[in-house]
Formats: sequence, structure tokens, C-alpha cells
Amino acid sequence: MARIVQKYGGTSVADIARIKAVAAKVARHVAAGDEMAVIVSAMAGTTNQLVDYCRQVSPVHDLREYDTVVAAGEQVTSGLLAMALQELGVPARSWMGWQIPVTTDAVHGNARILGIDSDELLERMANGEVPVVAGFQGVAAAQARAGRIATLGRGGSDTSAVALAAALKADRCDIYTDVDGVYTADPRIVRRARKLSRITYEEMLEMASLGAKVLQTRSVELAMKHRVRLQVLSSFEDLPGTLVVDEDEIVEQEVVSGVTYSRDEAKLTLVRVPDRPGIAAAIFGPLADAGINVDMIVQNVSEDGRSTDVTFTLSKAELPRAVQVLKGRDDLGFERAVPDENVVKVSVIGMGMRSHAGVAKRMFQSLADNNINIQVISTSEIKISVLIAEQYTELAVRALHTAYGLDAPIAG
Amino acid sequence: MARIVQKYGGTSVADIARIKAVAAKVARHVAAGDEMAVIVSAMAGTTNQLVDYCRQVSPVHDLREYDTVVAAGEQVTSGLLAMALQELGVPARSWMGWQIPVTTDAVHGNARILGIDSDELLERMANGEVPVVAGFQGVAAAQARAGRIATLGRGGSDTSAVALAAALKADRCDIYTDVDGVYTADPRIVRRARKLSRITYEEMLEMASLGAKVLQTRSVELAMKHRVRLQVLSSFEDLPGTLVVDEDEIVEQEVVSGVTYSRDEAKLTLVRVPDRPGIAAAIFGPLADAGINVDMIVQNVSEDGRSTDVTFTLSKAELPRAVQVLKGRDDLGFERAVPDENVVKVSVIGMGMRSHAGVAKRMFQSLADNNINIQVISTSEIKISVLIAEQYTELAVRALHTAYGLDAPIAG
Repeated sequence: MARIVQKYGGTSVADIARIKAVAAKVARHVAAGDEMAVIVSAMAGTTNQLVDYCRQVSPVHDLREYDTVVAAGEQVTSGLLAMALQELGVPARSWMGWQIPVTTDAVHGNARILGIDSDELLERMANGEVPVVAGFQGVAAAQARAGRIATLGRGGSDTSAVALAAALKADRCDIYTDVDGVYTADPRIVRRARKLSRITYEEMLEMASLGAKVLQTRSVELAMKHRVRLQVLSSFEDLPGTLVVDEDEIVEQEVVSGVTYSRDEAKLTLVRVPDRPGIAAAIFGPLADAGINVDMIVQNVSEDGRSTDVTFTLSKAELPRAVQVLKGRDDLGFERAVPDENVVKVSVIGMGMRSHAGVAKRMFQSLADNNINIQVISTSEIKISVLIAEQYTELAVRALHTAYGLDAPIAG
Repeated sequence: MARIVQKYGGTSVADIARIKAVAAKVARHVAAGDEMAVIVSAMAGTTNQLVDYCRQVSPVHDLREYDTVVAAGEQVTSGLLAMALQELGVPARSWMGWQIPVTTDAVHGNARILGIDSDELLERMANGEVPVVAGFQGVAAAQARAGRIATLGRGGSDTSAVALAAALKADRCDIYTDVDGVYTADPRIVRRARKLSRITYEEMLEMASLGAKVLQTRSVELAMKHRVRLQVLSSFEDLPGTLVVDEDEIVEQEVVSGVTYSRDEAKLTLVRVPDRPGIAAAIFGPLADAGINVDMIVQNVSEDGRSTDVTFTLSKAELPRAVQVLKGRDDLGFERAVPDENVVKVSVIGMGMRSHAGVAKRMFQSLADNNINIQVISTSEIKISVLIAEQYTELAVRALHTAYGLDAPIAG
């Protein structure tokens, strides 16, 4: 008997048959005596359709109206799943963000949860009722009257689920998705990738940030902060997934747990920037003011002592805007800006790095052995990322997966 | 300069291009200095899709969840239209039923509006903002916390519009739909049907009840009660529609304003019912208890003084349930129940009937001239309805249209 929050993603509720299958799965938990709360996404495809409507109406639209439109998808699935549970004899009711309420800040389109009023939900769960909560949405608390619907950004239902699990002090938060767990690498690229049975919050956070699309980054942050035991698993198979847990719950820590890649990277080099104090602030200040996130930064040593090349990376989507912001700044005095979209960021991640020497060396050696040139390097305590030319993505990921001993044994 | 509530039905907001066209129409009113509020239906087809989902999940579903699911359609259109207005430079915001709030009773699936809080809307309208209100929905006021979404029944956006117009004391309520007004008969059947420029509330109410599908019956009742000037018109043509107004606004009242028909009728005859006091109550009491609406009733004179045949009409959908209810009642003592779905109700409607003799006679004569047998008759002050075999529908409607001088002159 446990208190469990389950989240079902868009593919898990893609049609009525799947919604009924989800209801059956939840009903089995209820029959076993578990206290259940469920978070649902919109039916697969619905959110994209609604986002597309908004873009068609107006390329630059009021995000409060955008939130009102896109939140409708989760409203539909929560009502349908509540019905499906009732059909199986399980007491259930749907809950919209504004009904609970799930209060958020007023950053529409990408709001953060400020609080969840859990009293009534807990009382109903204790009486055997299953709350079916519309994910992805809350209500902006700023207005005294008539709060507006706010959404948490794409993938926000993961965050809804973790926040609800924290508020309900749930024993576990199960994230049902279309993959059956977290892998040592993308199985579409690395055939010998292995599913991890456990991974730490810190590693999961790096993986989510560095390109593994299993969980929304913010949901992992939140799980780490509130120590919510997360499980990632598939709603289509009855197999154990990957548990995301505290470090001390993992007995045998591998040096490297996974290799990730992100193609959503672009590189921008400013050639012959005057080499004077304050120049970095002068470059990155305006970019920050424009809301552009810069990731890796390299400043070359200048040959003549008077000028230097500054290279940094950012998301592909923000490259044109960054170029525009910098071209308008004659005071920076650089010769030219050279954009490059033909790059990928490949990272190795592992808690074990902290206590093992030679992890970086093995990465560089492995890439060198495959004649892959490293353009930029950045490291943290538990990851090493390199920027390389995009055409080497698969080669690099496979080579590193082998180099760190992550390959699954060959069957037979 | 006027204060106008406009309601746009599903076909008027069926896609993004049409939503933009609606925004342009509203913007023209705003530019002319009108204070505008808009009510929208769901995009054509959406509500049917959502209703179908509910039926697939469970044939007998929780109506509170049904309301949550189906109300999502109007939420989407209200957000999109608000965006489209903003895109044209018109200040606008979407309003859900729970945000205004539009409070309703707790009869989910077919709720009645109890009140509309209009203060904030009026204030914003005075400042030039256009409220775009999701039609068809409100919030059930019964619960102290976490009010549930309630819907007003199919066609409920008409009622939303009239109720809002009454609350805002609007000068006019324009109902934009896929027909361009109210006709003397269904133009698909009667080629020479004419569009009425004006019609009284009373006539419109009879027409809506008797099969003309232009307006939801309850919206007309509400308009009559609050003396809201209604206009029915097409959003696809820039033509004047039909005004629904007080009798004293109509100078020249025709004897008969229209001929309607309803195929949604069934007839049930109870053969050889014992002819004793209280038998009518014994039959119709259980039907009323089961929520079955009976329309016309005929009791034949008994031949032997001991038994009689009782015939009544009801909607086709309720026929099987009515048979079931009555078959369970052995105490009624009738010989057998004979159902008949092969019937149609044809009606003539007109305020002028009150002061003209011979209206009924002309109807019966016209049907007799066409060899159409009348099965049941019912009359009120301003309408006469007859039940006839369904195959005579077109013949009867055309004959009556001609008999009452409603045919438009032949062009050329």
C-alpha cells in the first residue's frame, strides 16, 4: 500500500482505447490498496494542433490567450479518464488547475508553480477517490479576480506530476511515456545501449539538459529539491523502468552513466575582438538582456596582444537574433561574426567522475582515435561536453559508449 | 453607437480564416464606436467529436465529466478570437464561464443560468475592450469550493448570448449562424419560402419548439422574458437578418407567419385501457417520473363504456424507454402498446390567429384536399399542430405554405 502519483503522456492517452487501458492500470493499483492520483497530458497531437492554430491567428500572440487555448487539451483527457475510471467502478473526478488550485506565477506560456492546495485531494484520496488532474496547467495567482489559465511550457505535465507528488507527499511518482526508461545512450543511435535501473537526480538533470528528451528538465530539478522518487516507464509494456533517486540509493556507481547529444546547438565566433578589460561583459550583457542563453564560451589567446577571437554556443533558434543584437553594437569593435549551425554537443555524464581521474582524457583520446576534432569543451563536476561537427554525431556517441564500457553484452 | 452582444455559431468559427473574418466584423463595429461583447461556439465538428469521445468511454457517463470535456471546444475558440482581435489592434480578452462567473444550477449537461456577474465586463467594455466569452458553459454554483464546469445543452451558446445581452443591458443581440434569418418554412423543402424581416418572440418560441432549428428554444424564452432584441443573421453574407421583437414593433401582422415540421416525433397508442377515473394520471405520472416529455395526447371515446384507447406523442429517442416504463405497470390494465415512429408533426404559427377565424379550418381543408389523414391535433393560441404520416411531410408543408398565402412571388 502506497501513495502514488502517475503521469501519462500524450501517446499513453492518444485514443479512447489507450485511455481505457490507463484506467485499467490505475484501477489495479486501487484494488491493491494504493492511494492514487493521476496527471494527464493532452491526447497526442492535440497540443501541436492548438499551438498551430495560435500561430495561424497571429505569429506574435498574447501568451495569456495562448495558455487558454492550449490548456484545453488536458481538460479533455482528464474528463475522459475520470469517466473511464468510473466505468470500472473506481470513484474518480477530474481537476483543472484552477479548481485545485495549482497557482503559478504570471509568466504565461512558461509559468512556474507557486503552490498546490492539496488538502481536499488528500481527503478524497483517503476516501478512495482518484483525482485525475489536467497536467501542464495552473492558474496565475496575480489577479485578485478571474485568474487566467497559465501553462508550464512544453513537457510541463512532468513538472505538474512531480509538484503534485511533492504536495501530496507521495511515495513515488511514475512518469509513463513512450520509452521504457532512461538509457545509457539514445537506442536509435547506439544499438547496444542499456536501460539503467537507477540513476541519480543529478545525472538525470544533466541528461535532460544535455539532450535526452525523456523528462522535462524542470521536473527533475523539482524532484531533486523535494526528494520525490521518480520512475520513468512505458505505459505499453509491463516492465520496470528507471528509478531516479538519491545518490545513496545507488550501491554500485558507474564512472559514466550515459552519453547524450544535442543537435540544437549553434556556434558563433566574433573575430578580432579588441582585447581589453570588460569586453566579455560588453558582449554577453546585451545578449542576456535580449533573453538569449549562452552555453559554452571560449576566448582564444590573442596573437598580437591587442585582439582575440571569442566563440560561444547557443541554441540554433536563437542564432539569428544573437547575430542581430551583436551587429547593432559598433562599440564592441570586432571584425566580423561567423555563425556555424553545423555543430553538435556530445556529453558524457556520471556521478563517478568526481572520484575517478582520467575520465576526460579517455573522452578526448577516443574522439582523437576516430579523427574527430573538438571545437569547444566545457565541464562540470559530473559531465564533460564537447562541441564537434554535426556529421560525427553517431560516430562520437558510439565510440564514447564503447570507450566507457557501457555497451550491453552481445546476445547469444 | 450601441452596446451589442454578438454570438457566432460553429460554422462561423469553423477554421482560422473564418475566425479572422469574425474578428474583422467585430472590429468594424468597434471602429464605429459600438461597445461589443462576443460569444463563441466551438469550431464546427469539435463538440460532436468530444461528445463521441464521451460515448466511447462510457455509454452512461458522469455528466459533470461530460461537461468538463465538451466545454473545452468553446475555450479554444474564445482564446483564438481574442488573439485575432488583438492582431487587428482591438483590445480583447477571452472569458471562460468560471472566470466571469456565469453561475448555473447543477443540472449538468443541461444547466440553467442563475446569474452573470457583469460589472467587470461592463467596465472593460467602457474602456474599449471586447470580452470574448466562451458560450455554452458556466460554473455550477452549488459547491462552495472548486466549482464544476456546467454546460447548457446543445445549442446553449444562443442562451449564453441572450443571458449576457440581458445582463449587460445590450441594445441588441445578434445571433450569427449558417442561415441568414428565419423563413416562412424550411427553404430546403419550400422553394418559395420567404425570409421574415421581423417576427414576435411568441412566434419564434413556437417555431423553435416546433422544429425550426434556427435558435435554441430556451434562448428565445429568455429573450422574451428580458425583452432582448434578437437578430438572426448569416456571418457569410452582409444582409439584414430577421429581428425577433415585441409584438408592438410589428405593424402589419400576418395571420400565419410560418409552417414548421418536426420529424423527431413518435406516437404510442395504449389499446383498451380500462376507462376509469384516475387512469390518465396513472399512465402519465410514471412517464413524468422517468423524465419523459409527452407532447400531444388524445383519448378516444370508448365504444363499450368500459375501455378506451389512449394515444400520445413523444420524441423518437424516448419511445423505447416509454414502452419499457409502461410495460412494467400491470396495474394499468391496457391490452397492448402500439408504437409508431412513422409520423411527423406539422404546425402553422402566427400571432394573427388570435383575431382571425377559420385558420384551423383552412389547415384541415388543405390537408384533406391532398388526401393527408390527420392522426392527432393540438392547438394553442398562436399555433395549430397536426400529426401525420411521415411520407407526407413535404407535401403538407408546401400545401400549407401556399394555402396561407406565404409563397413568395415567382421571380421574373
